[in-house]
Amino acid sequence: MNTSPLPIVRLMPKADARSIRFGYPWVYSNDLVVDRRTKNIEPGAIATLQDAERQDMGVVAVNPNSRIIVRMLDRNPDAVIDQNWIAAKLARALAHRDRLFADPFYRLIHAEADGMPGVIIDRFGDLAVVQPNAAWADKLMPEITAALQDMVGVKTVIMNGSGRARALEGLEETMSITAGTAPDAPIPVPMNGAIYMADVMGGQKTGLFFDQRPNHAFAASLSKDARVLDVFSHVGGFSLAALAGGASSALAVDGSAPALSLATDGAAAMGMADKFSTRQGDAFDVLSALGSEGETFDVVVCDPPAFAPSKKALEPGLRAYERVARLAAPLVREGGYLVLCSCSHAAEITKFRNASVRGIGRAGRSAQIIHTGYAGADHPLMPQLAESGYLKSVFFRL
Amino acid sequence: MNTSPLPIVRLMPKADARSIRFGYPWVYSNDLVVDRRTKNIEPGAIATLQDAERQDMGVVAVNPNSRIIVRMLDRNPDAVIDQNWIAAKLARALAHRDRLFADPFYRLIHAEADGMPGVIIDRFGDLAVVQPNAAWADKLMPEITAALQDMVGVKTVIMNGSGRARALEGLEETMSITAGTAPDAPIPVPMNGAIYMADVMGGQKTGLFFDQRPNHAFAASLSKDARVLDVFSHVGGFSLAALAGGASSALAVDGSAPALSLATDGAAAMGMADKFSTRQGDAFDVLSALGSEGETFDVVVCDPPAFAPSKKALEPGLRAYERVARLAAPLVREGGYLVLCSCSHAAEITKFRNASVRGIGRAGRSAQIIHTGYAGADHPLMPQLAESGYLKSVFFRL
Repeated sequence: MNTSPLPIVRLMPKADARSIRFGYPWVYSNDLVVDRRTKNIEPGAIATLQDAERQDMGVVAVNPNSRIIVRMLDRNPDAVIDQNWIAAKLARALAHRDRLFADPFYRLIHAEADGMPGVIIDRFGDLAVVQPNAAWADKLMPEITAALQDMVGVKTVIMNGSGRARALEGLEETMSITAGTAPDAPIPVPMNGAIYMADVMGGQKTGLFFDQRPNHAFAASLSKDARVLDVFSHVGGFSLAALAGGASSALAVDGSAPALSLATDGAAAMGMADKFSTRQGDAFDVLSALGSEGETFDVVVCDPPAFAPSKKALEPGLRAYERVARLAAPLVREGGYLVLCSCSHAAEITKFRNASVRGIGRAGRSAQIIHTGYAGADHPLMPQLAESGYLKSVFFRL
Repeated sequence: MNTSPLPIVRLMPKADARSIRFGYPWVYSNDLVVDRRTKNIEPGAIATLQDAERQDMGVVAVNPNSRIIVRMLDRNPDAVIDQNWIAAKLARALAHRDRLFADPFYRLIHAEADGMPGVIIDRFGDLAVVQPNAAWADKLMPEITAALQDMVGVKTVIMNGSGRARALEGLEETMSITAGTAPDAPIPVPMNGAIYMADVMGGQKTGLFFDQRPNHAFAASLSKDARVLDVFSHVGGFSLAALAGGASSALAVDGSAPALSLATDGAAAMGMADKFSTRQGDAFDVLSALGSEGETFDVVVCDPPAFAPSKKALEPGLRAYERVARLAAPLVREGGYLVLCSCSHAAEITKFRNASVRGIGRAGRSAQIIHTGYAGADHPLMPQLAESGYLKSVFFRL
């Protein structure tokens, strides 16, 4: 018997109620009874989910505009989704990050796996950047903001409402300061002994990619006295970590002049500007040019954007990964290291690795695989959404 | 035209010469022309491999007693397999380990991927333990020993000729000292800030498992002030690393009294005997007993022996992994960590992870996956033998 004042949504008899009971967090629109009443539910409304036998399954967020029409918030049907509820999620996530990291710079909330469906929160000291990529969170930004201030103790909260995920939810592009004041300069972020400059207002995503942290660290452990090439460098993720790890020099290559400028500022903040250089341009062109110049490096890293962002893009994406490997391998000295990364959901590890190995082979080189790394532990996965493990970095020795 | 004095072996026309040219290191007996002459080749003999068109493909080791009848040693048909050749392999492997590790304790040669098919060499300071699990290496133990002394600078070389791999090659069980003198006490091994006692003469495999090093380190990073349970502990791999990482206490469980005794000696050598305790017995029984006693821990690690050592053993093996997860999950406090490991070739990561998640679910708990780790970078893989990536450790937060 449902006694809550929440609207009710109901699974179709054909829906797999069991997998939801076992932890699957989503209901697709074709598995839900979508009558006129459900269609009229305001995007982001909180509701009670029932199975086809009208048994309560939990408290959910509903968005009739999204293919993921229902997202599970709490399996307790009596849960109240308010600032306290959000604070409890933040507290649990914070305990884990406190254990992992000495400095308060990390992904604090990684969506479903941290109990806040569709929500990304990156923390930069006393500032947080929230990506509310689901309608319920968009509506509850005031409560999320207040919980971040009270529970986590941040002073500034930035809502970054950009990106593909919001479009899928029917949410508009927007950016605002929901607490405190926007920083007037990039924020220095300590990570793996390096200093990165994060432009939280104008940069990509939330201004810095925390996900590669353990892979930066592993690359750095290979980089003592090494000449390092960091292709698709963004703000210098691998190259600045390599300098912190004792690299003799690092060259960062990226298409974005602002990103390279932030990377240069990071190297300067580390007191290592003399070991750091940049080359702006199309990464494929620069790789080819370095090859023609006969340049070689001890460590070469290629961390491109998602070449296979969807299943449709898989084949051309894999060919692009193969091409990266083919152009990069000749730049690695005999016995040196080649690090190839993919952040494509669609290119799972075996396919990506095989494409990379093919490219290395076409360059006339052979390789050992010495390490495979994924996103850091501040990017947890739900076991039920294993496909959400998008990031992989494969370390080869040539 | 073959001008070398080596015997010649030849691929069948149906054999996949292309995959061997692209790096596959083995020929199975049904892909080789096995005439009387080939049958009479002495196990471990060096020969020239030719394709069906009588083109030289490289220098190989032949063992008519093994299903893997041919192992590629060198793609240069003029290569001479002698002490210098072995020394070159050791030098290349050593350069990589020198870069990875501050202390000379590691897997120095990891078989095919390090260019020495079937050969395992673990280094313990100025001592090396060699497992020549292929006939060619068994024959060349004098050259391997000399190269280890000259190139690597070790003083003592132990040949450990035990284990399943040798039986498949038709090699006998044997153990001998091929250089120097056997140590009269376990060797203290520094790793991740802990000290392990390796019994290189009487222990399992080469006396210590180096492969879990990065997973020990990651578990240690979760263990500050934590109460840690280490099930299937062997000589204390996870528990001593956790103590080095600041754990408040560690309990090691294993069936082997000698292994637990070495673990206790390690804790004593670290000056942490007061925080370390052991419980000898069947791991399943001890897990059940701890559950009945209502014990909980902040970090629980289960690193069992291979439950699925072969494809035939896959289903019972997965059930055993599920059972481990089901018995271990209740011992983890809310918000604590459960680390589940598998060293089964046959249980690939998805199957192992699903079995673990099922077990956790049957215990009434839910989990985030925060990290997946494999064997350390001193255990490289050939891309062509991806199945050789046997070890996986999955880190859950419950």
